[in-house]
Amino acid sequence: MPTHTFTPDHYHNTIGSHPPVLHIAPGDTVITTTVDAGGFDANDKQVVGGPNPMTGPFYIDGAEVGDTLLVHLDKLTPNRVRGWGRPGLAQNVVDPAAVPALPSRDMMVDWNVDAKAGTASLKEPMGKLGNFTLPINPMVGCFGVAPDIGQAISTATSAEHGGNMDYNGFVQGVTVYFPVFQPGALFHLGDGHALQGDGEMSGTGIEISFDVQFTVELLKGVKSGWPRGENEEYIFTAGNARPLDQCVQNATTEMLAWLQQRYGYTVAEANLLIGFAVEYEVGNMFDPAYTMICKIPKRLLPK
Amino acid sequence: MPTHTFTPDHYHNTIGSHPPVLHIAPGDTVITTTVDAGGFDANDKQVVGGPNPMTGPFYIDGAEVGDTLLVHLDKLTPNRVRGWGRPGLAQNVVDPAAVPALPSRDMMVDWNVDAKAGTASLKEPMGKLGNFTLPINPMVGCFGVAPDIGQAISTATSAEHGGNMDYNGFVQGVTVYFPVFQPGALFHLGDGHALQGDGEMSGTGIEISFDVQFTVELLKGVKSGWPRGENEEYIFTAGNARPLDQCVQNATTEMLAWLQQRYGYTVAEANLLIGFAVEYEVGNMFDPAYTMICKIPKRLLPK
Amino acid sequence: MPTHTFTPDHYHNTIGSHPPVLHIAPGDTVITTTVDAGGFDANDKQVVGGPNPMTGPFYIDGAEVGDTLLVHLDKLTPNRVRGWGRPGLAQNVVDPAAVPALPSRDMMVDWNVDAKAGTASLKEPMGKLGNFTLPINPMVGCFGVAPDIGQAISTATSAEHGGNMDYNGFVQGVTVYFPVFQPGALFHLGDGHALQGDGEMSGTGIEISFDVQFTVELLKGVKSGWPRGENEEYIFTAGNARPLDQCVQNATTEMLAWLQQRYGYTVAEANLLIGFAVEYEVGNMFDPAYTMICKIPKRLLPK
Amino acid sequence: MPTHTFTPDHYHNTIGSHPPVLHIAPGDTVITTTVDAGGFDANDKQVVGGPNPMTGPFYIDGAEVGDTLLVHLDKLTPNRVRGWGRPGLAQNVVDPAAVPALPSRDMMVDWNVDAKAGTASLKEPMGKLGNFTLPINPMVGCFGVAPDIGQAISTATSAEHGGNMDYNGFVQGVTVYFPVFQPGALFHLGDGHALQGDGEMSGTGIEISFDVQFTVELLKGVKSGWPRGENEEYIFTAGNARPLDQCVQNATTEMLAWLQQRYGYTVAEANLLIGFAVEYEVGNMFDPAYTMICKIPKRLLPK
Repeated sequence: MPTHTFTPDHYHNTIGSHPPVLHIAPGDTVITTTVDAGGFDANDKQVVGGPNPMTGPFYIDGAEVGDTLLVHLDKLTPNRVRGWGRPGLAQNVVDPAAVPALPSRDMMVDWNVDAKAGTASLKEPMGKLGNFTLPINPMVGCFGVAPDIGQAISTATSAEHGGNMDYNGFVQGVTVYFPVFQPGALFHLGDGHALQGDGEMSGTGIEISFDVQFTVELLKGVKSGWPRGENEEYIFTAGNARPLDQCVQNATTEMLAWLQQRYGYTVAEANLLIGFAVEYEVGNMFDPAYTMICKIPKRLLPK
Repeated sequence: MPTHTFTPDHYHNTIGSHPPVLHIAPGDTVITTTVDAGGFDANDKQVVGGPNPMTGPFYIDGAEVGDTLLVHLDKLTPNRVRGWGRPGLAQNVVDPAAVPALPSRDMMVDWNVDAKAGTASLKEPMGKLGNFTLPINPMVGCFGVAPDIGQAISTATSAEHGGNMDYNGFVQGVTVYFPVFQPGALFHLGDGHALQGDGEMSGTGIEISFDVQFTVELLKGVKSGWPRGENEEYIFTAGNARPLDQCVQNATTEMLAWLQQRYGYTVAEANLLIGFAVEYEVGNMFDPAYTMICKIPKRLLPK
Repeated sequence: MPTHTFTPDHYHNTIGSHPPVLHIAPGDTVITTTVDAGGFDANDKQVVGGPNPMTGPFYIDGAEVGDTLLVHLDKLTPNRVRGWGRPGLAQNVVDPAAVPALPSRDMMVDWNVDAKAGTASLKEPMGKLGNFTLPINPMVGCFGVAPDIGQAISTATSAEHGGNMDYNGFVQGVTVYFPVFQPGALFHLGDGHALQGDGEMSGTGIEISFDVQFTVELLKGVKSGWPRGENEEYIFTAGNARPLDQCVQNATTEMLAWLQQRYGYTVAEANLLIGFAVEYEVGNMFDPAYTMICKIPKRLLPK
Repeated sequence: MPTHTFTPDHYHNTIGSHPPVLHIAPGDTVITTTVDAGGFDANDKQVVGGPNPMTGPFYIDGAEVGDTLLVHLDKLTPNRVRGWGRPGLAQNVVDPAAVPALPSRDMMVDWNVDAKAGTASLKEPMGKLGNFTLPINPMVGCFGVAPDIGQAISTATSAEHGGNMDYNGFVQGVTVYFPVFQPGALFHLGDGHALQGDGEMSGTGIEISFDVQFTVELLKGVKSGWPRGENEEYIFTAGNARPLDQCVQNATTEMLAWLQQRYGYTVAEANLLIGFAVEYEVGNMFDPAYTMICKIPKRLLPK
């Protein structure tokens, strides 16, 4: 299958029905780059403003409303050394009475990201934490397809079309499924994180630019309602809304549908599977829409 | 330290300032039993009605308001074969429009629990799932201490004092910390689950009676606000409220406090730790109060 | 019907199955007093601590589980001059990012309450507001009946049994209906406000002690699920929970039931009435459980 | 000042930076029409599909980012006889367990709207309700200005830019204020309701096409954050989000800002005013974003 190398020269702060930068066919692979959440590229030069500038959109030939687009995240690699993030928690993630004691939201910290060693360390030591070092886990914060009725939705938020889900499980090796709402699907991506805590509680991961490789496929006539994903161990669904309760409702309802659609379970069997074996993860609890992930272990499912 | 063997002859459906069944000292161990959520004992005989009948309360000598009680969950063992649970998801965990398609809430399934083999299997096969078998993970659904100002709170719900948190991480080997709100703390426990999916989305785990062994300690003058816990790999806090957002706020605020109190981090350091390294788990999204768990890996903390 | 004059000599900070202070019969009237939210009486002397000390409970002869208790609020009169309240909004009622700019929660203001003139004025003038004067609207902040399974619930919060609903429509002339959960119903009341803004957004109304007169009746075998009320113009229901959405769900579901139970509407007719003619009010958005009120105008209902 | 008569020949299902249909100056009046939520015009002919097709956008000369646009709703008149709506409540407004008993969401009822008499009556009688008749209260369900960063937001929902707020207080005689996010503001309007219950609990009011007259003004350099409004008796602010709690937080925070900005109150004075004298109303609890209204009586404010 063809591999396209695409060098972006402009970016979008919304996910919408923008003119495509490239037409690709199901099975094709794209090698490209993304700038960070603030628009800084591989040379740490700001080439566009925030929020979360998107590379794309890519038009997938043959994609029609009601299909499902598959995106294999083949490679996600930070392509520079400096990452940045906020150390102070967001005001909405602590008890309202605890807000005044939070550090300033203006504080920023830089991280040295060593993609080869697989680590990120604080550039400046910070008290007891010193040059705090964490293993990296490169992930896509914001990606998705053009939403319905011609909407253009800010890359600060998320919905049925994907968007700024900020889930730290969207890593290399994962296959993501998006409902197709517009002809060609119009796939956008950006907002790479070298790593991110659950919930993106300070409103950032370690924000950094990426080298990206992805491959698309198309499930003709297979309807989905929300982003879905799959890795070696799990199938999962994402719900994007507020409050977290509704994210869980959206993701669980989508999982119920998928279990019946893909594996032929009855509704009662799908209920039982979720009731006794489901796992949940918090995507983000910072963005205008929060994200929760509903997971079922593959070891419990038919091959 | 002394070990007390206690055989309960009555149970409570609220957690409150009930007359203690036993006085024990910090360091003491108690061996006892719990009935299941519906009041069925080791002989599968109903000895009391629901919700979640509690064994206890145990009066811990020397425990005063403002202290923290430690409970080591030494052993949690299902003590009969039959477990039971609901296969149908609760109405509040799916999209409101998806409620009519859910199976009846009256449906029940029995499980054969083999504590030695460490498995639970459906007693009656169910379509494609057959005699669906899962590894057991025995956990305490409901436990806690008497709440403040003389309240007696239903064991169907939870709050700062603990209660029906239904978190599948409260397993053997875990140490749990409760704020002391009443002299003697008045520790209650019950509602064993052979296993439970995240969120207890059908409103039950595999409900079963338990043989229990626990050991208590007392942290004099150490104030806590919400239940805390600790296992080999993590320290964690629980927030019990609605919606899930507020559970996260409660648990995260308690973790901020604990990181400063126990490890001497500054508020900024504690924020950064949570911002980049926190993990969350869903306790339950079924009970009148939901539960979220905030976790920090011990490998990132001082010994 | 008999009128009882009752002078309280103790109070409760929970609503529960406490020993009754008086047995009364359906049709009886009680003349009594309540202390303010902080336990200050008609002489402005603190006779008990907070939260919201309750007068009662009153045992209504013949009241059984599954009945509904009626309470006519005959007279609610502030019985002293000084009222007090907080000027600063609660942290949970503004945007999380706006919390640090709020005035201190420790600030208190005193009000001169003139029950005859029907006004309350700031005791100390405050900048542009001067001696800000408002018409009083005396209301009961916290009242209700003993909850089920022997619970004793803090008067800081509310639930199906009533409690700290802090709704400014619970005024003189209103009839309130409570589900009976315990023999004798066990009616408690207190926490008078000379007036209160919608939502009790600063966590207080103008807190003051009251002279109270109420009359009880009993609807044998009439089941209700949540507090209901009635005035000249409306029938209404209360939902007490978090978030406000759930309060609305509770109150609306109770109204659906009441319209069918009392007026014989079909479910479709009751739906249409609510869909096109319902009104809502915010009780409180401060307490651990919030309160929303669902109202239907009597002019649209059969006599 | 000039009056423009504008006859729309196309409509938008999003509010965004669409090509303007007319340039107007501050002070200008526009006479135009709107189609109903489903795209039916004054002749009851469907000229466009839903959701909520918008007339406009109107470009207001001189409007720049950071200004506030005023829209006087001079006249709102239903311009045909047939109105329509759903009798069944939405699934998200009742207790999840009560959903299965709701009437079908596919049911529709027609209403005869008599704009002169000021009444709406069920076209077909419905049981005990007969030809249920209500006074009309014509209101705009959906209107607003183009949002920031080039977004185009579905007219099914609402946000800082206005949109589908479905508040039954947006009636003739009201002045509405919108933050300007794009040059020219780009004002859209549509989705007229002959009347609507609080909360739009069945997802519709009485949907109908309108003759509309409005007049615009511009507050140069006056910044606002959310839609604001004003009638004879009140100033008010709108918060559009989920859950209702957040709507209240948004609207209350905007009111705090407006009281200081417009009347020169200190933050403490503005807090006290809200704390003791605020009123709230439910806009809608049906749309993807809900709406709550925060009101302060003008009689308490300086002239």
